[in-house]
Amino acid sequence: MHPWKTQARRVLLDASPWLVVENHVIELPSGQVISDWTWVDTPDFINVVVEMADGTFQFFRQWKYGFDRISLAPIGGYLEPGELPIEAAKRELREEMGCEASEWVDLGRYRIDANRGAGMGNLFLARGAQQVAAPTGGDLEEQTLVRLSRAEVLAALRSGEFRGMAWAANVGLALLWG
Amino acid sequence: MHPWKTQARRVLLDASPWLVVENHVIELPSGQVISDWTWVDTPDFINVVVEMADGTFQFFRQWKYGFDRISLAPIGGYLEPGELPIEAAKRELREEMGCEASEWVDLGRYRIDANRGAGMGNLFLARGAQQVAAPTGGDLEEQTLVRLSRAEVLAALRSGEFRGMAWAANVGLALLWG
Repeated sequence: MHPWKTQARRVLLDASPWLVVENHVIELPSGQVISDWTWVDTPDFINVVVEMADGTFQFFRQWKYGFDRISLAPIGGYLEPGELPIEAAKRELREEMGCEASEWVDLGRYRIDANRGAGMGNLFLARGAQQVAAPTGGDLEEQTLVRLSRAEVLAALRSGEFRGMAWAANVGLALLWG
Repeated sequence: MHPWKTQARRVLLDASPWLVVENHVIELPSGQVISDWTWVDTPDFINVVVEMADGTFQFFRQWKYGFDRISLAPIGGYLEPGELPIEAAKRELREEMGCEASEWVDLGRYRIDANRGAGMGNLFLARGAQQVAAPTGGDLEEQTLVRLSRAEVLAALRSGEFRGMAWAANVGLALLWG
């Protein structure tokens, strides 16, 4: 199997830092050329499922603009310039929950749109988390903290209460870890 | 918690049917107005993890433009106009693998980008699948079929061989089902 070759790229829309849309001219291994392949760049982000030292899991219950109702959600945030995913994960755990973790599990790095790009999501499980300070995070959304047992997390995942695709992936991988 | 209100929307880029980018003016519950919220529409899609009648799982090994190497992948495809997700899932199972399934498990419907939209992914597990015809699918990508045991699927998921976020979510949910 041979990768497709990018022959040319042109910016169609620059709404950076949130979104850049490009047109790519692509050559397939067969020699066929696709002249109008839409490519999207959005910022890389992290999500963190937080397992507290007592074995319960801590999530947010929050509303996001992309939803029609409230969702359970792990910690999430964009990488700052030059920041490694694990650094962003630790920073967001401190900012959003005021916690530090004794063990970090890297659950992988995933492409949001296999065809069109849209950045990479880096998923983590933080274990042995403990409250060390008050949260300082200033997300625009209202949110409340919830604690769930492992069985409750599985039930919530299976009933669709984690409404974001990256969140479902993060929670599923966290439950399958170990 | 109150949803944000969309006060106005304006098309910034129309690359339909693949991508439409809009600018939204949003009013928060506090009364604060955000005048430059970028919103993205991309087509809704389905993914299907296929469990054959003998208990093995069937995936593709394929390369996609958004990756730097080959990935394991479940069945995937966009919904056709007016098509229900379950109809698209059954159609793609026939087209891409020439299979029919005796049991369909709905693993949920997830927003790709909780903030900016980007469509919904509908995840399924097809069980008791059997080959009934030759595949007819004509995806642009080269791909090969692979059969894996449940233990091999879990190992592949945990080692990051499913490189798409929706694929990791679909495989994780399928393994946690039942």
